[in-house]
Amino acid sequence: MSTAFAIIAGVGPGTGASLARKFALSYPVALLARNPDNYTSLVDEINKSGGKAIGISTDVSSSSSITSAISEIKEKYGDKCAAAVFNASGPFARKSILELTEKEFTGGYEVSCKGAFLFSQQTLPLLVEHTNDAGAKYPGTLIFTGATASVKSNALMSAFSTGKYAMRALSQSIAREFAPKGVHVAHAIIDGVIDIPRTKEWLKDMPPEAKIEADAIAEAYWNLHTQSKRAFTNEIDIRPMLEKW
Amino acid sequence: MSTAFAIIAGVGPGTGASLARKFALSYPVALLARNPDNYTSLVDEINKSGGKAIGISTDVSSSSSITSAISEIKEKYGDKCAAAVFNASGPFARKSILELTEKEFTGGYEVSCKGAFLFSQQTLPLLVEHTNDAGAKYPGTLIFTGATASVKSNALMSAFSTGKYAMRALSQSIAREFAPKGVHVAHAIIDGVIDIPRTKEWLKDMPPEAKIEADAIAEAYWNLHTQSKRAFTNEIDIRPMLEKW
Amino acid sequence: MSTAFAIIAGVGPGTGASLARKFALSYPVALLARNPDNYTSLVDEINKSGGKAIGISTDVSSSSSITSAISEIKEKYGDKCAAAVFNASGPFARKSILELTEKEFTGGYEVSCKGAFLFSQQTLPLLVEHTNDAGAKYPGTLIFTGATASVKSNALMSAFSTGKYAMRALSQSIAREFAPKGVHVAHAIIDGVIDIPRTKEWLKDMPPEAKIEADAIAEAYWNLHTQSKRAFTNEIDIRPMLEKW
Amino acid sequence: MSTAFAIIAGVGPGTGASLARKFALSYPVALLARNPDNYTSLVDEINKSGGKAIGISTDVSSSSSITSAISEIKEKYGDKCAAAVFNASGPFARKSILELTEKEFTGGYEVSCKGAFLFSQQTLPLLVEHTNDAGAKYPGTLIFTGATASVKSNALMSAFSTGKYAMRALSQSIAREFAPKGVHVAHAIIDGVIDIPRTKEWLKDMPPEAKIEADAIAEAYWNLHTQSKRAFTNEIDIRPMLEKW
Repeated sequence: MSTAFAIIAGVGPGTGASLARKFALSYPVALLARNPDNYTSLVDEINKSGGKAIGISTDVSSSSSITSAISEIKEKYGDKCAAAVFNASGPFARKSILELTEKEFTGGYEVSCKGAFLFSQQTLPLLVEHTNDAGAKYPGTLIFTGATASVKSNALMSAFSTGKYAMRALSQSIAREFAPKGVHVAHAIIDGVIDIPRTKEWLKDMPPEAKIEADAIAEAYWNLHTQSKRAFTNEIDIRPMLEKW
Repeated sequence: MSTAFAIIAGVGPGTGASLARKFALSYPVALLARNPDNYTSLVDEINKSGGKAIGISTDVSSSSSITSAISEIKEKYGDKCAAAVFNASGPFARKSILELTEKEFTGGYEVSCKGAFLFSQQTLPLLVEHTNDAGAKYPGTLIFTGATASVKSNALMSAFSTGKYAMRALSQSIAREFAPKGVHVAHAIIDGVIDIPRTKEWLKDMPPEAKIEADAIAEAYWNLHTQSKRAFTNEIDIRPMLEKW
Repeated sequence: MSTAFAIIAGVGPGTGASLARKFALSYPVALLARNPDNYTSLVDEINKSGGKAIGISTDVSSSSSITSAISEIKEKYGDKCAAAVFNASGPFARKSILELTEKEFTGGYEVSCKGAFLFSQQTLPLLVEHTNDAGAKYPGTLIFTGATASVKSNALMSAFSTGKYAMRALSQSIAREFAPKGVHVAHAIIDGVIDIPRTKEWLKDMPPEAKIEADAIAEAYWNLHTQSKRAFTNEIDIRPMLEKW
Repeated sequence: MSTAFAIIAGVGPGTGASLARKFALSYPVALLARNPDNYTSLVDEINKSGGKAIGISTDVSSSSSITSAISEIKEKYGDKCAAAVFNASGPFARKSILELTEKEFTGGYEVSCKGAFLFSQQTLPLLVEHTNDAGAKYPGTLIFTGATASVKSNALMSAFSTGKYAMRALSQSIAREFAPKGVHVAHAIIDGVIDIPRTKEWLKDMPPEAKIEADAIAEAYWNLHTQSKRAFTNEIDIRPMLEKW
């Protein structure tokens, strides 16, 4: 019951699945997604291949849903979280300021920032617990998946970018509060199209190097997790070689 | 009925009052604040000294409250807004991530970003109307009051900084969408303590140059408003000479 | 002999001339340019229209040339400088890293940064002198003209951007050192094509609002100069309404 | 003779030595330092422990010195460079703008930026050669060591920060030019005191987590090197958990 585990919030067929597979090589993993279709077969795959995984249907923007998910995880895996990744991102309306409904506008924030806050609040005590464990191999690590819109806010993108800028602020504030406790907090600016089933038709006349490989993002996050307390990276950017930036 | 007017949202005894007095030298002004105590005597003062002012009790984080305020303004002043300043900022909880309630955490966003969105949505059509008016002296101008926390997110400051980062994202997105229509959107990073009644006891062993003078902020905003379409400034910082940064 | 004066380094037919005319409305001005053709008629124009101007042929990247120019100015105008603007910018090679000669690469730095340093070193004591003068209307002000390349470094632009990034670093360091002495240091990011004779053919199918008007830059710099010690702006951006950013 | 190799410029008892040891586990390494004392025993150590190393006395700010070093490396190791790290940094004068000599001021730029340019110009063709080699395991990688002063320019720090800002501009320009050719360019912001013999007395009342471990920097650079073309990180920050930022 006292093994450290990892939590991935926002599991889908892209980055989330790659993160799950990567972290499952070293830890039991708990996979959160609103829709069980997003994790069911993945949980099976990991369990069959010698890893350990559970999936929990969770709405990260709901306090009670997150709280209940974390309770279930603690029951199953204990109270030492080695790594928690917030990878959730809702759909968003790409519209003029004049055409956005209030609900559409706040939708980005609800998931990207309020959800990230609720997730952090529940996981930070478990990350501290792990960090303080003498047997911990790597410091407890909290990683947030950001986007180009975390640092550049284009026309028609306000519903998305306001949530992403706010999430970056959250990440920096938590990083500064929890670094002295040995918890490693990092924010990743994913700048480019990720190569997932949903983006199959995008950039299809370009070579593969025009899109980001989800497994490579998972590799980068793992490398963040294994950093020592004497060399924390708090922000990285990730883009494919053919991205204009 | 067709004179252009200015709207100041977030009027209190500091920057808001200075902005009201400054813009009232050139335009009829509409002053919005939740509490009428914040504008009543100021409205009188402006009306008695030859200007024209109205005050409207408004909760900027409420769509219906903002909509009703703008309706009232349009009835009184017409549909050409020369300048709209979003200067509102709620109180916020300076607390650990672990101690913030959900309501406390989202409170910063509610005012600083959702409020700024609702205000922008209602005022942008009036700003465009003014810009398109052949008689307009200066392009319609929308200004947001940011803070140090708009670009740096310290420990314990997440409730405030997430709202302020998000507001900056909003400002940049609107600036990019509306510049081609001739509307000037600017964001001001107020980096330092403003010298207002509430901060009287702060930094009191320091010379006056340790605090920002509210009238000087109003001056800077006015200078933004008078810029031509061929030289828009989209972001300024403002700090007193003795500020460390 | 004790009147405060202004110095504009980097006078040509664009921004420099506009700055000269604007500041000459309030101060005797000293205009520096490598080539006298760039200031001769302007000096005449200002002197004939009631202002006071001198021009000095100066290579801002040469310590002895700058020193001698400042000596001449002090003899003519005294030792109180109200405003010093560093607007110089050399030609630069837009080339691959692999094709740049060492001289081409360092050329951007020589003018934009080393020149800015030499100019600052000579003018700062005169700016302090002015600031300390009881009769000074506005604090001594040192302004640097930056560019898009001060904050974004594109392919083939390294010779230019390395100099401009370095100049921005210089500006921030001086701002922090001299603000406590009451000197106002500001950096302007000019983001767009300035409408000058040399750029006449650029963007010619676009409306005038696609280019920056030089007079509008001068207006913005003047507004920086007139800020009080209780509200210094250290950085502004300036772009025309039709600029993509 | 066609094995890929790595070059580390700026080898001393700290980061440079850690980088040399780390990259020597996978590649023959060429170590550059002005003073042979900085690499002699390290070269021995690597050669004795089964690796392969050469040291070359080089002044990175001198074109002829860099060119001659690269010629020697090509003769010994061939023309395929897997990784080139620019880790050089000269001593610098921490002084008021008014007290810096021209030579002191430009000293930071000479090493940090001009040196980085000369090094890049010589190594980029070898990095491209490696990237195009069908047998290359990882894309050719060029990494620059930056500092806090690469993004913040404090009072008295101009000689250092102007060079570091300029180096960051160089890194971004090269990254954008060479990413389409498959070369990975990254910039590391080292934000904190590195734990090396020279800093032994610094922060000595603090726990080890107040300083950065040089080996951990080497680990982070290696992780950058092993990234795929579909997930390049162009900038990371590195700080110890007890750093204030």
